[in-house]
Order: sequence, then structure tokens, then C-alpha cells
Amino acid sequence: MNNNILIAQSGGPTAAINAALAGIITAALESESAGEIFGGVNGVQGILEEKIISLTERFADDPDALRRLKLTPDMYLKSCRYKLKKPDEDDSDYVRLTEVFEKYNIGMFFYIGGNDSMDTVARIKEFTENRGLNIKVIGVPKTIDNDLIEIDHTPGFGSAAKYVATTLREVLIDTGLYPIENVTVVEIMGRDSGWLTASAVLAPPENFPSEPIICLPETPFDKDKFIDRVREEVNRAGFAVVAASEGLRDADGEYISANTGALDKFGHPQLSGTASALTGIIRDELGCKVRGIELGTAQRSAGHIASKTDIEESFTLGSNAFKYAESGDSGIMALLRRVGDDPYEVEYGAVDVSKVANAVKGVPKDWIDENNFTVTEEMVRYLRPLIVGEESIEYKDGLPDYLYDRHN
Amino acid sequence: MNNNILIAQSGGPTAAINAALAGIITAALESESAGEIFGGVNGVQGILEEKIISLTERFADDPDALRRLKLTPDMYLKSCRYKLKKPDEDDSDYVRLTEVFEKYNIGMFFYIGGNDSMDTVARIKEFTENRGLNIKVIGVPKTIDNDLIEIDHTPGFGSAAKYVATTLREVLIDTGLYPIENVTVVEIMGRDSGWLTASAVLAPPENFPSEPIICLPETPFDKDKFIDRVREEVNRAGFAVVAASEGLRDADGEYISANTGALDKFGHPQLSGTASALTGIIRDELGCKVRGIELGTAQRSAGHIASKTDIEESFTLGSNAFKYAESGDSGIMALLRRVGDDPYEVEYGAVDVSKVANAVKGVPKDWIDENNFTVTEEMVRYLRPLIVGEESIEYKDGLPDYLYDRHN
Repeated sequence: MNNNILIAQSGGPTAAINAALAGIITAALESESAGEIFGGVNGVQGILEEKIISLTERFADDPDALRRLKLTPDMYLKSCRYKLKKPDEDDSDYVRLTEVFEKYNIGMFFYIGGNDSMDTVARIKEFTENRGLNIKVIGVPKTIDNDLIEIDHTPGFGSAAKYVATTLREVLIDTGLYPIENVTVVEIMGRDSGWLTASAVLAPPENFPSEPIICLPETPFDKDKFIDRVREEVNRAGFAVVAASEGLRDADGEYISANTGALDKFGHPQLSGTASALTGIIRDELGCKVRGIELGTAQRSAGHIASKTDIEESFTLGSNAFKYAESGDSGIMALLRRVGDDPYEVEYGAVDVSKVANAVKGVPKDWIDENNFTVTEEMVRYLRPLIVGEESIEYKDGLPDYLYDRHN
Repeated sequence: MNNNILIAQSGGPTAAINAALAGIITAALESESAGEIFGGVNGVQGILEEKIISLTERFADDPDALRRLKLTPDMYLKSCRYKLKKPDEDDSDYVRLTEVFEKYNIGMFFYIGGNDSMDTVARIKEFTENRGLNIKVIGVPKTIDNDLIEIDHTPGFGSAAKYVATTLREVLIDTGLYPIENVTVVEIMGRDSGWLTASAVLAPPENFPSEPIICLPETPFDKDKFIDRVREEVNRAGFAVVAASEGLRDADGEYISANTGALDKFGHPQLSGTASALTGIIRDELGCKVRGIELGTAQRSAGHIASKTDIEESFTLGSNAFKYAESGDSGIMALLRRVGDDPYEVEYGAVDVSKVANAVKGVPKDWIDENNFTVTEEMVRYLRPLIVGEESIEYKDGLPDYLYDRHN
């Protein structure tokens, strides 16, 4: 009887992706119909290589570890960036996956990931169904980019937004300390969608004299308008903070951060990030002191300032995913819809995963105030509840006591 | 009767500098001999311009605000980078300061800052004493660089170290997720001393397969040895994380991050940070995927992950500074000495401020393991207690509820 369970994670990490894993494991451990729970290490790429571990053995008798797993950022089962070919072009990967599923008596397969991963879910579902295998294949969403359609917001986004808004709050105060004109540019993740950069709008503390200047990838970068806005803010407040998407492009669609063609002193091509490009422009045009900050992967892994709303929603989505599979659903992604902003309320459900696969949701044009380099009140209402609440993370020797297992 | 109090802050911010301010205010409010408490905005530069506010008015009847002040990073009274001239060359600033002290009936002046600020304290003490004024002039230490002599460690360092070690822990896990070789380089503050960079040694979670590769400014950068070490780590663990000081220099004393002479596409000189320089070298020599992270000013302002040990020590140093002044001391800096590592214990005291002024404490040679790009067990024992404990920061709408007043 194929009542065993296989779970894997894919794509970029978030602070909430292990909460979804913990949600699936918790629901499966509580279920009487479920068999053994397995984890595939390094996503579908690892499953093809049969990198399979027993999560039942690891967690069934260790509720403390399961609780720590929920609050550990990044991916307990590690990741991959492996894209399956279309089955009608080359079905060898699918045949191999099916072998592994059968060897481990897998009746449910859960894949936690973003829109690429949902494409993988849709294809595995179709292939196994066509072969007449009885395997429930379910997608569980996550991405700090918040760019999945159908779902109100993606698990992982709220925690990344809380980290970005908190850090921007601290950077705003810092930048305003000196009686000399100065500008700080913070580069924020999200190459094609500006949701995370937009969360900078929440940053100013009460009474603060300056607003962050927000540059989203949805708006072509206009150097003159940008410099005017920075100059205006520096004249008004004495300083300015710019929150710029790493994916900022000019009117020709070229990245602001494009390779400059220059070589550094070791003879390597000089790659300029968005922060570096913008600090150069500001220094040249305004002549004042300018600093750049590139938070990089720290944004997607900041479990120490995770949003409780985000972690709990992700856990529930994982738990729901198991229940859908148990009741016979397949080829769906667990999701949530917003019912109210204030009080904030969501309802949970599911959607055909093929509707979500490969589609991208950017920031709506009418939520962007292009002239003022900011976002509208609708965006603020949308963002505010997603960063609310703090988890009681345990610390050991002064550092978050994250769960890490080597799997080898 | 000159029993009023003046407090100002100077130099770079930290997460603990307002705790020292709160400590002085709290002790002064509890004292029967103290008059009104004033704050000088923007350090001595602001005092020269008579930018003076009443802290008694602000805090005497608002204990909640005083509690929030203690946990707010950056500097409530703002900062300056103003260096007083030597009095025998030009005493006009000292004459002006004395006028302001007399106008506000100041009997105690507290200056919270690093080694430059302690030089200012020493000079003001000498000048006012020579003029026969009865003003107690006291220094209160702070700097994330941890480079003051006489004191075991400086307030602000423990919180910055906790932020760096926490972030490195999250970046280490993130970097190890993919089944492809990759390296992340994190650039850490501290241009001349490597204390903060060294705190990366605390980052690996239990069971983690890789150690950060630590590059301190005290050790001349050797490209070949560095690449060998990165290659070794990538071969062993599949990935590597480099923690590099922004002040990294080569054997000729030239900054690794020195201007390359190249121009970007807008025609500006291309400034390359240390992270950018090292990612270029690694990409060239190893050919694997490399990312750079520049946390910048986020390191010195991260109140959301402040060390409770650090905050409480800073508060006590401020409170002690008031008591020393009240008992007639002048020209001293409040300090702490370590009595034990485990259990960790300190004793408080004071030192002649002229002994501390302008001196710099780097990482001792014998605490650096140059061949292995790490630090020794002595350094770990020194660092570990400084990051212990978390303050109960209040959150409002999902963000730390820092105290911010405009002062104008």
C-alpha cells in the first residue's frame, strides 16, 4: 500500500519555508492513514539521485526539534534549481522519479516552492496520472518575491518585508544623525517585481522627517527625475535614504547594474550592483556623502526577525496541503485569500496548480506613485498586516538556536 | 548654583549608545543634588550653536519614553564629527563652550563617544579647570569597533557582534543550500581593527559542515593563500562563506577596496568595496558562483537584535558616570574590566580620560590564526559572553517601536 509521504523544497530560501515543512510533518504525524514520512534532499534533483531521508525517524519522537524546525530559516531539505524537461520531449526524469516513488511506496508528494516549482508539480501530476499511478501531488507556495498569482501573498514574503522595513527604519535614523548632507542607498531583492522594495514604505518611525525614496523595477528608471527627487529630500530633511530594487532598469530595459565594461585592478570585469550604480550617480550629481548597502541573501534568511503572521500562515498552508491530499485532491496548490485588512483575516483554500505555474504577479501600476518615488495607501494597507507579530525564537549562547542537520 | 547637567553624543552610532544616555538621565533624575538635565544636539558642534534641549522636560514624567530610549539604536541626541582645535592654537571654541556652560548653569558635562570624543573630554576638562570653572567633565565610552584601550570591551560592540554573528549564521545556511559550488563574501565594518569581523567565528550552527573564512585588517591580505583557503573549503564542504573586514589591506598597505581607476557607464570613478574586490578575485580564480553582501550601516544600528549584556552594561556605565561626577570626579572615563569569562563577570570603575584619548586597540597577533584564516580559542572565549541575552523590545505594527524626537 502506497501510503508513504515524500516532501521536498526548491528554489530560493525564505524564513517561512521550514514552517510549511513542519506543518506537513505535523499533520502527517497526527494522521492515522499516513505511513512513513520521507524528505527528498536538494529538491527533485536530489530525488532523482535517491537522496531520501526519513523525517518520521527524525521528528516523530522529538517535538522540540519539530518546533525548532518551524522557526529555522532557509531550507532544512536544501534546494535545487533543476527544471524538468517537458515529458513529451524527454521523459527520462519522470520515469526515474516514478521509480523512486514506487520504491518508497509514496502515495503523496509535496513540493514547496515558487512558480517554477509549481510547474514541476503540474508536470509530475500529469505524468503520474497518465501512467495510472495513484499519487497525490500537491504544491505548497513560498517566495520572498511575492510574485505568485491567485494567492493574496506568498509565505516568506512577510518575514522578508519585516526584515527590510526594520533594517530601513534603523538605516533611516542612522542616516539622519549628522549635520552634513548625506544619502544612503539600500539595494533590495526582487529582480522582476517590486513587492519587497515597496515594503520600505513602512520603515519611518513616528515623527521622522524623511520618507524613503522608492525605486521599483515596474517603473523605468529616469535619472533626471530621480536626482530631482533625491535633491528635494536632501534640501528638505538634510539627508535621504533610497530603497532601490536590484532589478531597476532604464527606459531601454537595460539593468542599471549592468556590467560597465571596466576592469578592476586585478583585471576582472567590474560588476556594478544597483546600489553601486545609484551611489555613483548621486555622488556625481549632488556631490554629497553617499553610502551603499547590499543586504543580499541576508534578506531571505532573516529568521531572527520573522513575521509571526507569515510563519503561522506558512505552517497552516503546509498542514492544509496534507489534509487536501488525504482527502483525495491532487494537482493543486494550497493558498490563502484575504478577507479583511483591518482586522486582518484570511481564508484558506486551494487552486489548480497549472493556473499558478510560471505566471508572475508584479506590483499593480495604480499602487505605484511614480512621480513621488513611493507607493500608495492601498499598498500600505496591503503590506501592513503581513509583518505583524514576533515568534518566540530560542537563543543559545546569544544566537538563534536554528535546527541544522547534515543529511549525510 | 551650577548644578545643571549637559549630555551629548558623538562619533558613529551603536545600538547601545542611547542606553548610556538613559543611564545618565535615570541616575540624575533619582539624585537630589542634580538640577535640570539638558541635551546638546549634534555633539559639541551643536553645543557651540546652542542647540540645547531639556531632557528633564522630556523624560521626568514619561518613564515609558525613557525605557524606549534605552532600547532605541542610533543616537537620540544626534551626532557630529567635529574635532576641537588644540586650545593653545585656537581657543575660540572652548571660550564659546564655556559661555554656553555658564549660561545654562552646567556643573556636569557628559560626552558619550569613542577615542576622538575622549580627546575632546580631556581638552574641555583641562581648559575649564585652567579657567577655574567648577565643571565635572566625564567621558562615557561607545564604539562598535571595540578599539578603546583600558576598557575590556566597548558598549555597542556586543550588539554589533550579535548582529554580525546572527546574520553570518543565516548566510552560512543559505550558502550551503544548493548542490553547486558557491561562495558568499560578507564585508564587515572596522577599518583598522578586526574585532567585529572576528565575531563571525561564532556564526556556525551546531553540526554545520563549514567555518567562515575570516580576513582581518591586522593581517596583510595574501591573495594566493586566500584562494587556497577558499578552494580548500569549497572542495571540503561544497561552498564557502568569507567574512572580510572593510579595511583589508595588501602587503604594501594598500586597501583591497582601493579605487580601481575605472569609470562606470555614467563616467564616474568606479569605487570597489572589499566584498566586490574579493568576489572578483574568487570568480576569476575558482570560476564558481560568487555573491557579495555589504551590510554597511545596518551593522551599527541593529537595535532589533541588540545584546542584553551590552545594553545593560552601557546603561550601568552611564549611571556610574553620573555618580562619579556627583562625588566630585572629573576628567575620567567610566569603564569596566572583566573578572571572569565563565561565569562572565565584570567590575566597574574609571580611568583618567587622557590615557584613553586617541589610542587604538587592535586584535592581538596571538589571537589570530593567520594560516587558517580564523581566530583562536582565546578570541572565542572573549567574544562569547558579549552577545548573550535579548532585550524585550516592544513592537508596534510589526516594527520595533523606537523613540524618535525631532528636536526642532
